[in-house]
Formats: sequence, C-alpha cells, structure tokens
Amino acid sequence: MLRTHTCGELNINNIDENIKLSGWIQKSRDLGGMTFIDLRDRYGITQLVFNMETDSELCKKARKLGREFVISVSGKVKERSNKNRKIPTGEIEIIVEKLNILNKSKIPPFTIEDKTDGGEELRMKYRYLDLRRNPVRKNLELRHKMALEVRKYLDSQKFIEIETPVLIKSTPEGARDFVVPSRMNSGEFYALPQSPQTFKQLLMIGGYDRYYQIVKCFRDEDLRADRQPEFTQIDCEMAFVEQNDVLNTFEKMVKHLFKVVKNIEIDKLPRISYHTAMKFYGSDKPDIRFDMKFVELNDVAQQKGFKVFDDAELVVGIKASECADYSRKQLDKLTDFVRKPQVGANGLVYVKFNLDGTFKSSVDKFFNEEDLKKWTEKFDAKPGDLLLILAGEKEKTQKALSELRLEMGNRLDLRDPNKFCPLWVTDFPLLEWNEESGRFHAMHHPFTSPKKEDIDMLETEPENVRANAYDVVINGVEIGGGSIRIHDRELQKEMFTALGFTEEEAQEQFGFLMNAFEYGAPPHGGIALGFDRLVALFGGSDSIRDYIAFPKNNAGRDVMIDSPSTISAEQLKELKLKVTE
Amino acid sequence: MLRTHTCGELNINNIDENIKLSGWIQKSRDLGGMTFIDLRDRYGITQLVFNMETDSELCKKARKLGREFVISVSGKVKERSNKNRKIPTGEIEIIVEKLNILNKSKIPPFTIEDKTDGGEELRMKYRYLDLRRNPVRKNLELRHKMALEVRKYLDSQKFIEIETPVLIKSTPEGARDFVVPSRMNSGEFYALPQSPQTFKQLLMIGGYDRYYQIVKCFRDEDLRADRQPEFTQIDCEMAFVEQNDVLNTFEKMVKHLFKVVKNIEIDKLPRISYHTAMKFYGSDKPDIRFDMKFVELNDVAQQKGFKVFDDAELVVGIKASECADYSRKQLDKLTDFVRKPQVGANGLVYVKFNLDGTFKSSVDKFFNEEDLKKWTEKFDAKPGDLLLILAGEKEKTQKALSELRLEMGNRLDLRDPNKFCPLWVTDFPLLEWNEESGRFHAMHHPFTSPKKEDIDMLETEPENVRANAYDVVINGVEIGGGSIRIHDRELQKEMFTALGFTEEEAQEQFGFLMNAFEYGAPPHGGIALGFDRLVALFGGSDSIRDYIAFPKNNAGRDVMIDSPSTISAEQLKELKLKVTE
Repeated sequence: MLRTHTCGELNINNIDENIKLSGWIQKSRDLGGMTFIDLRDRYGITQLVFNMETDSELCKKARKLGREFVISVSGKVKERSNKNRKIPTGEIEIIVEKLNILNKSKIPPFTIEDKTDGGEELRMKYRYLDLRRNPVRKNLELRHKMALEVRKYLDSQKFIEIETPVLIKSTPEGARDFVVPSRMNSGEFYALPQSPQTFKQLLMIGGYDRYYQIVKCFRDEDLRADRQPEFTQIDCEMAFVEQNDVLNTFEKMVKHLFKVVKNIEIDKLPRISYHTAMKFYGSDKPDIRFDMKFVELNDVAQQKGFKVFDDAELVVGIKASECADYSRKQLDKLTDFVRKPQVGANGLVYVKFNLDGTFKSSVDKFFNEEDLKKWTEKFDAKPGDLLLILAGEKEKTQKALSELRLEMGNRLDLRDPNKFCPLWVTDFPLLEWNEESGRFHAMHHPFTSPKKEDIDMLETEPENVRANAYDVVINGVEIGGGSIRIHDRELQKEMFTALGFTEEEAQEQFGFLMNAFEYGAPPHGGIALGFDRLVALFGGSDSIRDYIAFPKNNAGRDVMIDSPSTISAEQLKELKLKVTE
Repeated sequence: MLRTHTCGELNINNIDENIKLSGWIQKSRDLGGMTFIDLRDRYGITQLVFNMETDSELCKKARKLGREFVISVSGKVKERSNKNRKIPTGEIEIIVEKLNILNKSKIPPFTIEDKTDGGEELRMKYRYLDLRRNPVRKNLELRHKMALEVRKYLDSQKFIEIETPVLIKSTPEGARDFVVPSRMNSGEFYALPQSPQTFKQLLMIGGYDRYYQIVKCFRDEDLRADRQPEFTQIDCEMAFVEQNDVLNTFEKMVKHLFKVVKNIEIDKLPRISYHTAMKFYGSDKPDIRFDMKFVELNDVAQQKGFKVFDDAELVVGIKASECADYSRKQLDKLTDFVRKPQVGANGLVYVKFNLDGTFKSSVDKFFNEEDLKKWTEKFDAKPGDLLLILAGEKEKTQKALSELRLEMGNRLDLRDPNKFCPLWVTDFPLLEWNEESGRFHAMHHPFTSPKKEDIDMLETEPENVRANAYDVVINGVEIGGGSIRIHDRELQKEMFTALGFTEEEAQEQFGFLMNAFEYGAPPHGGIALGFDRLVALFGGSDSIRDYIAFPKNNAGRDVMIDSPSTISAEQLKELKLKVTE
C-alpha cells in the first residue's frame, strides 16, 4: 500500500508516529526556510512540512512540486504550533523525511476549489478533475449513502433485489425508446427499458411478493434543462397489497431516509387527492412548506358587471399575509410575472386589506367595500393582507395561480430549503385526453387499475374514472409515483380498448403479460422513485446533473468522451444498417 | 394487506390465533368429509382445512379450486394430529372460515414442482411460472443474498458505489459492442459498456480511491452455451495500491462470501504464476481441488528410439493413483477421450506400475524396465499407480493433458462439488499474438501495466513481457480478473504502439484517458468479478442462466417477451436508419 493512513485521519493521538501518506497537492507555500504543502485525498487534507535547515535537498525538491502533482511521503507526525481548528487534521503536521513523486500534473484548466473558476462546459469536459472538488465529491458520497440506506430499509422489509433485463422490447406506449440493433437477428431491435414495469409485474405473478431494484432506465426525449437520457430509479413492487399498504411501506422509507441521512424527523405524510391538490394548490405536486391555499370566488365575484370575471370559468385567488403595503411597482412586477407565457394569465387583480380596515383594489370600479369585504371573509384575511386573484378557464387559471403562489412563496421566504414537507397525492384520473393523437392516454401507464367504484364509467365517461394511483411529492417536486395494477385479464383488455388499442396491437405488444394474467396473477402494486432527483433534493439542489458522476449535456452528449460518435462502416454492415440523411 | 402472515411462518406458537393468508394452490386433496389444500407463497406452504360437516358451502367452494388459483383465506390456527416434521409449518393447519378467490388460473403448461415436467424452452416461454418453482426461487434468493454481502463487505472497506454511464462510446478494441443510434445526433451512436473500465480509471484520477459497482455489462458475441449478451459484474478499482493490496482486499471478500453464504472457512488463497499454472496444470484456471500435477519427461523419455516422443517438444504426464488395474477397455476409452477434437491429442501412452513391482506400458517395445522405473521415480509413483502420458507441441499437449487431468478428476471423484478451492493466478503475459489480425493483442486489456523489470522488452521481445495481471479461479472456473493499470501517459502510448494503434487511432479512441493521465493520475488497479458465474458456482451449478431472472437463449432472444423484434418504420425514420438486406 502506498500509504499507511489517509489524509483525513491523523490527529493529536498519532504524535510521533512514522506514517506514509499519498495524495494530490492542493497548495504549497514557500516561506523561505520552510515549505508547507497541503496534501489532499478523498478523506481530507494534511499539512506537510519541509525544512531547508534539516534537509535542503528534500526541501528544494518539494518547492518544485506543482498543483495536482501526485506524491507519496514518509515522515513523522508532529503537533502544530499554529493549530487549524476547522479541519480534523488541523492539530498536526507531517515532518517529511522521504518524498516520492508518483505523477506530475499539467496546470489544471480550472481551480480545484469549492468555488472554482471553471465554467460548466469546461468542467464537464474535464469531469475527472471536477470530480476532485469537495462539493462534487460530497454529492456522490451522499448518493452512495442514500442507495445504501434504501437497500438497508427494503432488505429489512423482506424485499428481494432482482435484476431485470436491459435489452428488452420496444413498445410504442409512453415516451420514445432507445433501440439496440441485433446483429444475430438482423432487422430486429432490442429496446432499453423506460422502466422495468412489465418485468416487475411478472415477478409478482412469479410469486416474489416484494421486489426492488435500483436500476438504470432510459428515455429518448428531447432533453429539457434537467433531464438525462439515462436515469436511475428505485423500482419496487408488492403483491397481496392494497393502496394503503404500499403508501405505508414507502412512507416509512421516506421517513427512514430523512432520519438517517439528514437527522430530520418527518411526521405522518398528508394524503390528499388529486382533486383536492388541484383545487387548493392548482398543482398535482404542491409545495406544502407554506399554506397559501387557493380560495374560489365565483359566487361572490361574478355577476357584478366585471366582464373578465363574469366570463371566467373560475375566479380564484391567494392571500399574501402582511403584503397590503406592496407598492405600485411591486404589484406591476407580479402582473408582469403572471403574464409571462410560461405562466399564461392575462392579468392580475389585487385587493389590499389596509391596516385601517379600508380596501384598495384594482377593480374598485366594479366592486364596492361591501363586495370586497365578502372576499376577505372568504380568505379569512386580516388587515394588512393582500389578495391576488386570477380568472379564466379553469385549468389554465389554476396552473397560473399555482405559479404565482410559488413565486409569492419565494418572495416571502416561505420555501425554506432546510424544511422538508413530503406528502402523498392520490386518486389521479386514470386517463387524460391527448389532443394530438385524438385519443385517451393512460395518465400513469396502461397497467394502472381504475377505482372499483368507477369501473362502470370506463365506457361512458372515461375522463372521470379515478385510478388507484399515487405520487409522493416533496417541496413541490414529484419524487415518485405508482399504482395498484390491473391483475385481471379482462379488465386489462378493457383498458387497452379504452386506450384505443386494437386487440391485435394489445396482443402483439403485451401478449406475454395478458397471458401471464391467466395463470394466477395476484393483486399487486408498486412504486418507482426517481433516485437522481431524490438525492438532489436531499442535497439541496435543483439539478440532478450535480449528483451524477458522468452526466450528459442537454444534447445528450458526453463531452468528455465525445459520445455519441460515428461507428465504422464495418460495424454498420454487420448490423445490416445504413444511415440515411 | 391481504394477509396477516405469510405461508412460511405459522407454527405451534400461533395456535388458536385468527389469521389471514394469501397464496397459490400447490395441491388439493379431497377426502370426502374433508378437503385439504396446500397454500404456497414465497415463504413456504401452509395446510388449509375445509370441513363438509361444519361448513359444506365453503367446502364445496374449496373443492372447485384448481392448481395455481390465487386465494386469500381467513381462519384459525390449529394443531395438526398428523404432523409433518419436514416443513416449518408442519405442526399446524388452518381451519378456514372465509375463502376469497383472488384470481383463477388455467392449468399451467408444466408442473410447478421441484422436478418439473417442463422442458427448457417451455419453461423459458412461461418464465413467470418457472419462477414459482422452489429451485429457481432459491437461486434468485442466493443471488440477492450474495449481492448484499458483497456490498456489505466493500462498504466496510470504505469502497464507494458510483454509477457509471450505460450510454458510452464504441471502441474497436476487445469484443463487439452493442450500439444505440442517437436520434438527437443523427448518424451517431452510443455503445453499451463491455465494462466500466475507462470510467473507473477516471474515477481514480478523480480521487475516489476505492470504487465499486455491481453493474450490467454487454457484449455482442456469438453466444456459446453459457454466455449472455448482458451480464453482471462486480466492478472494483483502488488507487495508491500495488498488486498485493488488491489481492489481499479481494481475497478477504471471497473468504467473507464463503463464510457468510456457505459457512465455509477458506484458508489463504494460493498464488501461482501463469507460468507455473501452465507447467503443472496446463491451464490458467486450474482446478486444485485435487493434486495430479503434470510431470515432464523429456529428459528420461526422449532419445530412446520412440519417434513420437523424440519428435515432441514436450513429453508430459499425470499420475492416476491406484489405477494400475485399469482394463484394456478403460484405457481405450481414455485414448478415445484424448483424441476427441476438443482435446486434440494424437494418442495416449500409459504405464502401469503393478502392485507386484513390475511395469506394463503401451510402449514396452521402446522402453525397458529400467527406463520405466526412472519415469515412475519422477512421478513419485507407488505400486498400483497408473501413468498417463502425452507428447507433442508444447501448448497443445499441455491443453490436452489438462483436459485429461480434469476427466480423471471426474472419474476418480476428486472434484467434490461441496469443496471449494479458490486461488490466484498471477503474472500473465501482457500480450498475445493474434494470427488473424497479424498483431499483438492485449491479453487482459490495453490499460494493464507491464512488470517494471520487463518494460525494456516491450520493443524487443513483447511476447515475453509479463503483466501486473491476476485472475481469481475457483474449482477450475475463472471467476474474475484484474490488473494494476498504466497511469503514465508515455507508457500508455508505448503500449498502444505495441498493440499496433497509430497515434491518431489511440487519440481518437482513448484521447480523454490519455489527457487525464496528464493531470495527476495516481497509481491504481482493480478487478472485476463475473457475478452471474460467482453465484452459479456458489449455487453448485455450471449454468449462469439458472441464476438470472429473465435470461436470453443462445440466439440472444428473450422467448417470453419475443425480443428482439422489428420496430416501426416511423422509429427507423426518426433515427435516420434503413435496414439493408
């Protein structure tokens, strides 16, 4: 071993020991008679001392070492006179007796510091250097720790980890598949899994009643800011369970993770229906770190002659406590905000409930003191509060107000990054209408079961059928979702019909699953959690890329290895493929 | 939850409890007044009792249940009069009070029994039913347990699990890559990793000094009996280590696995060089459960007028203890064996050292008593022993004798499947000549470092350069291998030159790694273990397929989901690809 210790472990208890360390040169200070070097490895930093008086040869050699050189030194541990209380090794230093240069280094293209001078692109190209920085290392260590704790918890609950195949079959349902041409079966392709969904259901049919896997999944999407073509999922399934059993099991997992990773005790997770979430937060992934629930005003705000309200399907608002003193400029900015295309409202109505009990609104022309008083009563508003109101088509207005609510949460510092408020959103609609394809799509996926009491509506009013589907949401981010699956062949057939599959299409794509249902499929359900996003959330970041060792950029490229790339004509020929253009 | 207990846990301590179980009907016996059902789940079997006298309706319903129906029952635990001591639940039975049929089942195409009547192909098509059988379940449980213990051990040694990408870059070195067309970068392809080799080296350069991953790898080979296009590797790398450090670390892991999984204590693993392995076993993966080492006879067997020996590069044999009484017929069978094309010898010479001290050989014409006595002395043979001797070109003869040695090991019951003899084979040649390409190929891979003392021979006699490379072998099976890597840019360049790469080719394919070497690459090395094979070995089977939940067949097909398959014209168009033929 090229070391006896790591750079993070020596302290006052090791005084006078002869030790050997290896690592990288973080920095070096030449003070004339003495040269100090900070030696870094994964575990910390230890100070090395070279003395011109005792060994001038060695000291001269040390002076020539550059940043990021890799060295190995032998020496003695001594107490420092000038102690650094900020690091675990700060009470000692190493009086170096032998120095071995293991490798030189060119000057790195950016500084290996917590705050580096390297831009994103440069750091990605030299990711192996970026990986040396503390913040990146801590992110990957967090990821490791969380994977470990997920496994520990699930193992304790008798889940068995089973690997499902990566080379599977392409199905047109859902997002776009990555495909893999088969050389041995020319003209045919494997697909990379978007999730192990059908395999985990087959495992339930195979009797493995509690399965999990931390598994890579793939989706060939046009990448948005924070998506990756390959991502990692905590994938789980249980048999002989009902919705509550799944919720209880994974609620405990979420609590376990918060406890062991962040030492945070989480109360029981609230469970609210999709309908309630939309009604009060305008979002199926509400951030409930702060209240600011929607209040609907149709009954008190319509039929008073204000056309915008009168024509609206929904008049709805939020209350910003103690914001009645907002200036004209501040209110204009909020109006600009809601008018942004991503938010999509036409305008914003405000009502100031002044401290003196009077009202001032942007619609004073249409509503008198009496009217506005009714509104504030609905909001349970106090003098000093500000009401912000939108109106229009229901879904669009809910969405816009949801954005405004989050914006106000930010402005009022109500979204504390150190506070975590997970919840369950349940009872999602089974289907959603897709304008483009002119048919219903499964909101979750085609194997999700409808609520028993709603099955009769599948043919008559499919849009109102609720699913046994649930999401776990933390701080406004969807961390995972799942459902109780269909385990009955006839119901699955009916579902495929509702989704516009012909019998042949259903048979061709999912025949094996339909067949499996005929041989004693147990009731089952499960969940999948986005592991990258979960880790990012725990790490306090919005970007999953920071928590992936070798991420791809927004064009799906790995700029370090320069991939994807062309392949040889020979490879294409073997695969019996031709690139057209 | 559709049960209060599993089918494997109720016993005499639960008498009179009201419980609920769910599971599959393993079998059912109708004894007129009583109907007994064996209910099965992942955890075991519990006997259910239905009584015509107490509840004839219920009993009649139970009689109609078929094999593999899924049911849920409520009832009371009672002590059995007729106890079954073979199963943990054998002292009790459930007097059923309520029966709920959760799903029906068609009659399965083969019996769900330890010894099933289903052939391989049928079982693969209905893998979800095959998975219900005990032996398959135990295999997957073993796999789970072993993955868990590998992680536990490596975590205890400060290894950090880091996920490396699956969508990487195709390189022509090594086996054939599976490729993935990129839609966003048309005409370009990702490749699936044959191993995370370069990424784990970059992690070392990035400072993560102990990395591991249990990871899927891919190889587009023409499949032999026991290969899979996707397979799982325990992939590890360490920095600041020398060969012995890696060997010691993973020797402990092997011991740990044998101890916790099979309760077997393993002694220190022998370490023998490649040269020694070839000399004494004719194989770089010797089965050392039995001795029977090779003895070379050139000095005592040549120049006696027997042309076959005189013309041979090598005359070499093994001693089969107490086999001097082999009959003519037995010896003929051995001769037939060595002449098989897979073995490749031309003939077999035997010498019987009879119990009375005389000799009888197949070459008595050329060798007298005196000569044969010298041979037996070389073998340290005793009266009653049999010598089996081959001669010819060195490598071919070693290989053939190695096969004969294993065959004799089988015949003499020296290869006890319950005995495990792991060892290290070290000092492999760095390069091997490839007739087809007319150049040297890396025996391990192009990143393996040569022994320091052999570097000078790289240009002059490359075939004699030894590598810092090692394999771990158990019972004649190569379980894993690794090496100390090159961490110096110049040496890596020299290596690429020795492998016949032009500078441009090396730069294009491995430029990112060569560049990384310029920024302080630490000395590092690692190992990769074939997880499928390791589990199979622990499970006592030769076939890795038995230890994979959803394996592919020899044509690389998943016959259950019928994959690979054609994809739509639209998909091909999006990828800008055309299938030629």
